[in-house]
Amino acid sequence: MSCRDALLTDLYQLTMVKSCLDHGLRDVAVFEFFVRRLPEARNFLLCAGIAQVAGFLQRLQFDDESLSWLQAQGICDDRMRDYLARLHFDGDVWAMPEGTVFFADEPVLRIAAPLPLAQLVETRIINILHFQILIASKAARMVLAAADRQLVDFGLRRTHEGEAGLMAARAGYIAGLSGTSNVLAAREFGIPLFGTMAHAYVQAHASEQEAFIHYARSHPGRVVLLIDTYDTEAAARKVVEVAPRLAAEGIAIDGVRIDSGDLGMHAQRVRSILDAGGLHDVRIIASGNLDEYRLQALRRAPIDGFGVGTRMNTSSDAPCLDCAYKLQEYAGIARRKVSEGKATWPGRKQVYRQYRQEIMIRDKLTLENDVGRGEALLQPLMRHGELIRALPSLDAIRARTRAQLAALPAALRRLDMADEPYPVIIAQALRDLTDKLDGRSDAD
Amino acid sequence: MSCRDALLTDLYQLTMVKSCLDHGLRDVAVFEFFVRRLPEARNFLLCAGIAQVAGFLQRLQFDDESLSWLQAQGICDDRMRDYLARLHFDGDVWAMPEGTVFFADEPVLRIAAPLPLAQLVETRIINILHFQILIASKAARMVLAAADRQLVDFGLRRTHEGEAGLMAARAGYIAGLSGTSNVLAAREFGIPLFGTMAHAYVQAHASEQEAFIHYARSHPGRVVLLIDTYDTEAAARKVVEVAPRLAAEGIAIDGVRIDSGDLGMHAQRVRSILDAGGLHDVRIIASGNLDEYRLQALRRAPIDGFGVGTRMNTSSDAPCLDCAYKLQEYAGIARRKVSEGKATWPGRKQVYRQYRQEIMIRDKLTLENDVGRGEALLQPLMRHGELIRALPSLDAIRARTRAQLAALPAALRRLDMADEPYPVIIAQALRDLTDKLDGRSDAD
Repeated sequence: MSCRDALLTDLYQLTMVKSCLDHGLRDVAVFEFFVRRLPEARNFLLCAGIAQVAGFLQRLQFDDESLSWLQAQGICDDRMRDYLARLHFDGDVWAMPEGTVFFADEPVLRIAAPLPLAQLVETRIINILHFQILIASKAARMVLAAADRQLVDFGLRRTHEGEAGLMAARAGYIAGLSGTSNVLAAREFGIPLFGTMAHAYVQAHASEQEAFIHYARSHPGRVVLLIDTYDTEAAARKVVEVAPRLAAEGIAIDGVRIDSGDLGMHAQRVRSILDAGGLHDVRIIASGNLDEYRLQALRRAPIDGFGVGTRMNTSSDAPCLDCAYKLQEYAGIARRKVSEGKATWPGRKQVYRQYRQEIMIRDKLTLENDVGRGEALLQPLMRHGELIRALPSLDAIRARTRAQLAALPAALRRLDMADEPYPVIIAQALRDLTDKLDGRSDAD
Repeated sequence: MSCRDALLTDLYQLTMVKSCLDHGLRDVAVFEFFVRRLPEARNFLLCAGIAQVAGFLQRLQFDDESLSWLQAQGICDDRMRDYLARLHFDGDVWAMPEGTVFFADEPVLRIAAPLPLAQLVETRIINILHFQILIASKAARMVLAAADRQLVDFGLRRTHEGEAGLMAARAGYIAGLSGTSNVLAAREFGIPLFGTMAHAYVQAHASEQEAFIHYARSHPGRVVLLIDTYDTEAAARKVVEVAPRLAAEGIAIDGVRIDSGDLGMHAQRVRSILDAGGLHDVRIIASGNLDEYRLQALRRAPIDGFGVGTRMNTSSDAPCLDCAYKLQEYAGIARRKVSEGKATWPGRKQVYRQYRQEIMIRDKLTLENDVGRGEALLQPLMRHGELIRALPSLDAIRARTRAQLAALPAALRRLDMADEPYPVIIAQALRDLTDKLDGRSDAD
């Protein structure tokens, strides 16, 4: 994957490398990744994907075949080929821990490395962080809306290609989902696996009863029967019918799944049918185009768990973030881009978060060397290309997320937009530096 | 990738395999992939991703390591392991040629294979087709809106992870874009590469003039200067200033790029500045959150080409399709799912398209063995797991797209929704089969 990853970039990163080498621009550049503005329906974002950025940086290298191809395309000359052949990431990295809540303008990641290297990694770093933050943030809203009911990721099929499917399972799990249907995600990340049965399996049988019995016999430990292929309530009665037969074989039915129609109404009716048949312990799982608003609307329905998919894994109401990876310092001098609507806060920055009675009350965005009170959110992660702390386990990240979501002010936990955005104070030191740079820039 | 691809699936596909094997359900199953409903802002969809489905099917296999893991998880027993170890795709496939316009309910792909195999491949097939169709369809709207101006994909950074970035470049190129900034997409698919320069490169220099000169000297064959880092018009004047110096070195400036602010207004002013400076041949490239509506609004601006990204590569106004891969026949008998809002047209189907004076006038959805007039859109692609025709080149697919877009009725080429959807006639033979199955299902 690493050599493929090296080419998974924009051409301009390579033209920049060449131009930096040609003109001796090899001083240390400091870049920060941040989100310029939160999407309309988001009160907060959740940090995710840092482990994958670290992995990408650690594995970054160009193989001979790639280099020959680049040279044949006229993208690199001998000097640049030599540089790329020896390239590995030897810079410093700071990052917020995954599972940390953050807001607009706050740097999530900072990289300090020679300019051509720090520039080269831009595309893939944005690509990795953008997606996992997007999905973890959407999933966190769904977790809040679901309250104590179980959520499982069923979204692989409509996630944008396979790699996003894998990373969406991770981002969802970080945010608090219970697991995924994605087998590869289970193997790569150890995320708990869930699955039910397919409509086609029911259709291939002469009767639903037979399909239910066959499925239950093949999977006696986890029998969740899909009951909406033809008529949901009729199928629920068939579940009641077959239950004693299966019980006689020592097989318990764990649940039924409803995947279409008015989920609340069907769940109500199915619950009654199951209860009347003595199947009080059979859980009801619902799925089908669920997002946080529908989960909230279904709060009173007798549904024990949800399969969520497309809307979470594409973050369908806000499928992209206005995020950037920007040069904030070069050769020891702070830098600032002032393009309209895209101006940045310059310099190496830190975010301090203050809590009162375990609820977060304000963040301060300031320069790294400024003093601050509270929790410093950016922490050193890599030094000279080596990890200086172990990456946290997914369990540890989930615990961080739980604590952060619990510490959110009540107004930010709601699905509606808060009347007031969370306070992110721009420190005087940062304002002063910005004014100074703007003065210098005018004199340019 | 193949072994990884085999596990890139939902757990229920594997539980279905086991249950099929346990109960002898190994007859030929026929599945079709189709889109149930077009998203709100789409008058048509464009077929894409068939080559990747064929590649997935040809490479499908489980390696020992994966099988041992599946067995350790309790997902497969000895019989299933034996089955999976020998598994390869030996079924038949029919598909619409990539670049074909299609509509709701029309099968894009049909697979006939033993049930456990045809079921197993569901997740990845949907995952591949959903994304490329989504992006090609969005990109086709942008191509129509751009009229003759050049469009280039700059979207990798905010596409949903790397694999989607690669496939979005392909889907966009199929739809008619001129190229991509994605280096890996150039290498894997031969798509023309485009690139300009980075804001950070400008920022790292003491002055913009110096950055422009350095960049031009490093890339004398393709000088596109980024002019919005500080003040767009001031930078345009600096371009005029440095042009004679570069000309004296034999270097021509090809273009300038504007990436922020009011693109139409800046383009107008920059054009005036360049023209007044004698730089009539310097092209203006614009980028920044462009979609088909903005491209249309910028029709009169003096912009020669556009970099398009996030909104195209996430299909941001409609980031998912209501698509499905459904069992239509098993063991020679047509099947029908009748879940609410998700009922399917049963049986092996074909779509016939009729044209009048080279404009498409109606499609007929009917059974494969029914007679039809016009162009049969589903064509045989694989037989017994082998390709029976060469996959078309990207150039051939682009030509197909151009011809199909040219054949669209005028109302469907517009960005607004057509008053009348394109007519897709459901043939009587198909209605009769559906009625017959519904009768049978009631008696179930």
